[in-house]
Amino acid sequence: MDVQVIKLYENRDDVTLTTYVLADSKEMLNGKARPAVLICPGGAYISCSDREAEPVAMAFAAMGYHAFVLRYSVYGEQVFATGFDKMEPKKECQFPMPMREIGQAMMTIKENAQNWHVDPDRIAICGFSAGAHNCAMYSVYWDKPEITDYFKKDKEVFRPAACILGYCLSDYLYMKENNTDKAFFDGSNMGFLGTKDPSDELLAKVSPALNVDANTPPTFLWATAEDNLVPVQHSIRMAHALADHHIPFEMHIFEEGPHGLAVSTQASAASRSQIYPDAAKWVPLADAWLSKRFAFDLPDMTDFERMMAEKAL
Amino acid sequence: MDVQVIKLYENRDDVTLTTYVLADSKEMLNGKARPAVLICPGGAYISCSDREAEPVAMAFAAMGYHAFVLRYSVYGEQVFATGFDKMEPKKECQFPMPMREIGQAMMTIKENAQNWHVDPDRIAICGFSAGAHNCAMYSVYWDKPEITDYFKKDKEVFRPAACILGYCLSDYLYMKENNTDKAFFDGSNMGFLGTKDPSDELLAKVSPALNVDANTPPTFLWATAEDNLVPVQHSIRMAHALADHHIPFEMHIFEEGPHGLAVSTQASAASRSQIYPDAAKWVPLADAWLSKRFAFDLPDMTDFERMMAEKAL
Repeated sequence: MDVQVIKLYENRDDVTLTTYVLADSKEMLNGKARPAVLICPGGAYISCSDREAEPVAMAFAAMGYHAFVLRYSVYGEQVFATGFDKMEPKKECQFPMPMREIGQAMMTIKENAQNWHVDPDRIAICGFSAGAHNCAMYSVYWDKPEITDYFKKDKEVFRPAACILGYCLSDYLYMKENNTDKAFFDGSNMGFLGTKDPSDELLAKVSPALNVDANTPPTFLWATAEDNLVPVQHSIRMAHALADHHIPFEMHIFEEGPHGLAVSTQASAASRSQIYPDAAKWVPLADAWLSKRFAFDLPDMTDFERMMAEKAL
Repeated sequence: MDVQVIKLYENRDDVTLTTYVLADSKEMLNGKARPAVLICPGGAYISCSDREAEPVAMAFAAMGYHAFVLRYSVYGEQVFATGFDKMEPKKECQFPMPMREIGQAMMTIKENAQNWHVDPDRIAICGFSAGAHNCAMYSVYWDKPEITDYFKKDKEVFRPAACILGYCLSDYLYMKENNTDKAFFDGSNMGFLGTKDPSDELLAKVSPALNVDANTPPTFLWATAEDNLVPVQHSIRMAHALADHHIPFEMHIFEEGPHGLAVSTQASAASRSQIYPDAAKWVPLADAWLSKRFAFDLPDMTDFERMMAEKAL
């Protein structure tokens, strides 16, 4: 496994792509490309949580996919010490930069596709909480000028093969009216939108559920009905929009569990309160869903089996 | 994740310990040690299969355990080209060297335990086919002079916390009478025992099922009833011996599937014939079994939850 931390900007340490590239072997794919999953941890656009980074990468690597963790631009967790009320706008972490960095990561993976044995047409994105919002934004903006004009590239290099969203935030207009923690979301909005009082026009623009179209990729959603930070209605509204636009999707809502479960086992937990075996089933469910799209190019038999079969004739 | 390839002998490239050490994070275990799993791939003591190496390491890393792959001394796969009939004995890959190398790997992991955040009392061993034989041998010899006298160390450094055996070979006397492929096993015996005609005394000595005692660790076995290279009776005989000695164990025998399934998904397959979804359930079954012994030292609540709970009083 090739683990590297690649900086997306030469002069910044905070925005990085960590590679978990599986070793090629003549006993398995023997040089053939594998699909990959690009992971965006959550953290309210203030931090990128480790709990939603390497443990998730390991889940996808165990399925046989290359994994990549993108730590995109966020305001910075020092704000938890200095206080939300003292935040000043910072352009570099505001919309549309975080979703552009998914585009930048896609370009980096595709530039290295041959060396890493990545199938460039089968790269999924997977996010959690704000990271799921970022992935969902990318899902609806990957082919739009906000990304294609910025990089001056043909849209095809940016196309995601699939999208996996854990307890996503999908509708900022809904959040404005149904806010569970005003101080917290004011802080998050200050980071991501540069203001505590964004216009309804801006809120609509940054709401993936309001921007789904025919080019949105197949999507897998999961959440817990008890989530009292980002209410489950956000996943439901995203699913509704996907259904409206006839995008293939799958959704699993588990009855119990708080916000931020990551893989929902001790592999990603800071406490027992972050372990819910039912919610942990999102991993094998996503595995089954992905494998329909990400089947490896394998022969029916090994060379040895073929030789034995021919001998037996 | 810290991936390194460590040579067990300065002057040899073939015997290595590959580390898959998970990153520590203040958001999760915050410096506390994790359990680990040491993996021995199979390959008839002639090679160490990649299919039973990194894909298995990823399965245990996804459970939140550090993983290590040991490539122990084997005869060398060049014999598949030169032919079994031209093999000359090679001391360095014969019994008891392969199981001693598990002891060497245990010492290496424990020497680095603080740096890697490994819990030295919770290191499991996990092998497949000949690698499972090697692990089972270690399970019954870790506290015996073949290992303790050789390294001149107290036995406690070598104690394995648990043992996981996939389609193991456990009884060479049974194999002598029930041999599925004489040329193949002659070759394997030439590599591991230095002769095609080992004595019954030697065969008994290298049969884990005949050497189980009270110090054999808790063991998880899995196999497929259809295996026509190492018949399932080897797993059954090992389980019988464990039951006779009141060693905690669990066994899962799946009806279908050939020898050498590894994780039995496309993650370890060279062909579709190596994918059996039923047999692949050994991974979540082993996860459940291990987690009873390898529960992390986690608080009931996060600091944030405790603060919110205290505020609510």
